[in-house]
Amino acid sequence: MAAEAPRQAVHDLRDEVMRLLDRHRVLTSLASRQQTPRHDLLEQMQHRQNLVELQRHLRLQHPADIAVILDSLSSDDRLLVFRQLEPEQAGAALVEASEAVRASLIQELNRDELVRALRTLDADDLAFLSGEAPESVLEEVSQSLEASDRSWLKDARHYDENSVGRLMTQDVVVVRESQTVAEVLDDLRLRQEIPDQTDRLFAVDARQIVRGAIPLHMLVRSDPAATIKDVMVGDIASFTPETAAAQAAKAFEKYDLVSAPVVDDRGKLIGRITIDRVMDYVRDSAEQLALARAGLRGAEDLFASVRQSVHNRWPWLALNLVTAFLASRVISQFEDTITSVVALAALMPIVASMGGNTGNQTIALVIRALALDQLREQHGQLVRKELTVSLVNGLMWGAVTGLLAYVLYRDAALGAVMMAAVLLNLVVAAVTGIAVPLILHRARRDPAQGASVMLTFITDSMGFFLFLGLAQVLLL
Amino acid sequence: MAAEAPRQAVHDLRDEVMRLLDRHRVLTSLASRQQTPRHDLLEQMQHRQNLVELQRHLRLQHPADIAVILDSLSSDDRLLVFRQLEPEQAGAALVEASEAVRASLIQELNRDELVRALRTLDADDLAFLSGEAPESVLEEVSQSLEASDRSWLKDARHYDENSVGRLMTQDVVVVRESQTVAEVLDDLRLRQEIPDQTDRLFAVDARQIVRGAIPLHMLVRSDPAATIKDVMVGDIASFTPETAAAQAAKAFEKYDLVSAPVVDDRGKLIGRITIDRVMDYVRDSAEQLALARAGLRGAEDLFASVRQSVHNRWPWLALNLVTAFLASRVISQFEDTITSVVALAALMPIVASMGGNTGNQTIALVIRALALDQLREQHGQLVRKELTVSLVNGLMWGAVTGLLAYVLYRDAALGAVMMAAVLLNLVVAAVTGIAVPLILHRARRDPAQGASVMLTFITDSMGFFLFLGLAQVLLL
Repeated sequence: MAAEAPRQAVHDLRDEVMRLLDRHRVLTSLASRQQTPRHDLLEQMQHRQNLVELQRHLRLQHPADIAVILDSLSSDDRLLVFRQLEPEQAGAALVEASEAVRASLIQELNRDELVRALRTLDADDLAFLSGEAPESVLEEVSQSLEASDRSWLKDARHYDENSVGRLMTQDVVVVRESQTVAEVLDDLRLRQEIPDQTDRLFAVDARQIVRGAIPLHMLVRSDPAATIKDVMVGDIASFTPETAAAQAAKAFEKYDLVSAPVVDDRGKLIGRITIDRVMDYVRDSAEQLALARAGLRGAEDLFASVRQSVHNRWPWLALNLVTAFLASRVISQFEDTITSVVALAALMPIVASMGGNTGNQTIALVIRALALDQLREQHGQLVRKELTVSLVNGLMWGAVTGLLAYVLYRDAALGAVMMAAVLLNLVVAAVTGIAVPLILHRARRDPAQGASVMLTFITDSMGFFLFLGLAQVLLL
Repeated sequence: MAAEAPRQAVHDLRDEVMRLLDRHRVLTSLASRQQTPRHDLLEQMQHRQNLVELQRHLRLQHPADIAVILDSLSSDDRLLVFRQLEPEQAGAALVEASEAVRASLIQELNRDELVRALRTLDADDLAFLSGEAPESVLEEVSQSLEASDRSWLKDARHYDENSVGRLMTQDVVVVRESQTVAEVLDDLRLRQEIPDQTDRLFAVDARQIVRGAIPLHMLVRSDPAATIKDVMVGDIASFTPETAAAQAAKAFEKYDLVSAPVVDDRGKLIGRITIDRVMDYVRDSAEQLALARAGLRGAEDLFASVRQSVHNRWPWLALNLVTAFLASRVISQFEDTITSVVALAALMPIVASMGGNTGNQTIALVIRALALDQLREQHGQLVRKELTVSLVNGLMWGAVTGLLAYVLYRDAALGAVMMAAVLLNLVVAAVTGIAVPLILHRARRDPAQGASVMLTFITDSMGFFLFLGLAQVLLL
């Protein structure tokens, strides 16, 4: 196994890899220019030597570090580096790489290369990749698994992508509650390997129903003659494969778990979920969320092709174009007013922008409360508070913007219109900022994704309408 | 210790707590209305009984579950519930609660209540709270600690808030590499307690320098006569107290760690960092980031006072007001143009909005790459790719918006101006979307926080300038 703390820092390794890739490029371009057979031999040797050096650098690295390097390379370089890896490393690096990079590698590798890398993985890792690798490749790879692993993989692939079933592993050390501590210790000594993240052993009864767990440190300190039943911890958290991964993550966080049993409907042990997979899940979802908020649909890696990028980004832009055009239609209703007082055209984006910003602040708070499951029956209280805040902010910022408008245009009525419009739009923003995420949540849609577009649409349209409407009434 | 998987689900507990709080409010209002002494006794009894029931419900709950309930209550109710807790529970719930709720409790509890709760905590937890509880309270509480704990707390409080020093614990099981496995097992049996998350024991040499670690499962399976040195894993990741917490989190994630030693400059063991604290840190930072992106400075809880909320939100609104006014000045330079072709006023926000949206997509990708440390020398490559994407998108969306403008106003020249302005603004957005986060990153500022405001300012101003400028040249 690769060392946990590599002697060579990832930065240094990456610099070295980059250097070798540059040399590779130089040699390749030389080779393509000088087609004379005389140079061939020497150059081919240099070329091969260069790749051997690259292999040597990569060999001893932890797959997680190799994944970091793969993530930071352009797709050509990435493929070249990946091809220098031993099959075991290649398989493990594929598991560790980010989703977008994994997708690009799976697409660009030929079938044999992919099969060779995936063959080195166990059923758990294959289950993890099952949504991404081609069906037929997985089928072929799974032929070389043992029958029990094959059926595990088959089951695991059916669970929802964001469920415990996809994160769980079958590597679990089980003891019978009727065994003595001494017997369990003897059994442990006979095992070739204990899976990582085994902080405790799960105790089952005769029907394989999970009854409790015994932490390893308790095991070594217990009376060898005692039965597991006497020394185990009884009331432990367990999950079914259908449990949402997010819910399991919350439990791991709350109860500081390292591992927990996965059981079927009757409580029978079928696998185990561990903190490392949970933490990967938490990190991945946080990242996906950040990208989704900016309107990036899938996992897009930094060096994705232009075609992929355009494809990935267009739905968001299309949606925004529609809302922007609708808001623009509000303005066009007041063209006569703008022609009379052209200052309105310059000032109206300010009203819209203040509304959008305060509304997004409210949305961020509500979304966080929904994610933490804090909002149940106190909607009234929340609405009162946010309305008060928006009134205070509206009076304050309305006064400031109104004053600025007056100073710029020396028009007291225009200043008053500005002030009233900002105040009213901030109230609109507060109500919208609460209502939109709650409605999306009720409709079982992710409020983090669509709320901001809808809010901006409303605060823009209402900002324009309030400002230009008030101006039409009061200034003309 | 409270059970890990409470029989009563948190939802049910919360509903029950809410019901008792409602009854408490009814009884309180009754008591204040009927001032006759005759009713007093009965009502007081009911009142007390109600609170006793509340206490009974809370007693057996895990502090993490109580924290969830505290998070979802308004500040009055929260205080009432908190006061029904046993001191040990109160202390632990304070540690588990979200930062904003903890801040409000610390502020509203009287000094004695706070001291009583904090006295039940150990030095690690006190170190964790040290930035938030008043100096003098911590001073008083630390008087009742043992001398070694007191000096540990004093040291821990000096480390930066986002460093390993603040997350580490002093609870660590150390063995000498010269001990035999049998000796270590005997020592373990004599210990009253083994700290949670002890997956492995750290092995030190005679000078307390960390030399390796032995996983518990390896310990029970090793030859009792072997020395630790022979069976330990040598090359393990360790951190200094000054290590950034984010860096430690990355290592935990990459190498699937459960615990790691914290050492001083010479490699001497001073403490331990565990996955549960790391995971809390990861979750907290992700939340803070999401709030910061919407311009919420600190931890603001859902039921914070209006005063706090206004205070928390104003800097962001002020900044946005300034940028919105500056963008408005760009428009006012073209007032004559707008007066001649008033359609420009309605169409100009579309140009600005398309730029803002594509730019934010680029920013999201660049920020993610920076966070994952993927961007080192490939800036040129990135710029080329994003520019190409923006050109493709610009031609596509420029054509669509241009066509829409033509259809709406039956003016081919206006359509052409629209098309050119959208195309150019998308290119501006791509360049800005790359440059702004990179510049902020170089200047050692968090790119996630300021990048979006700056981008929107530039895409708004340039959008108005390009559209109105082109219109002035081509339409008048």
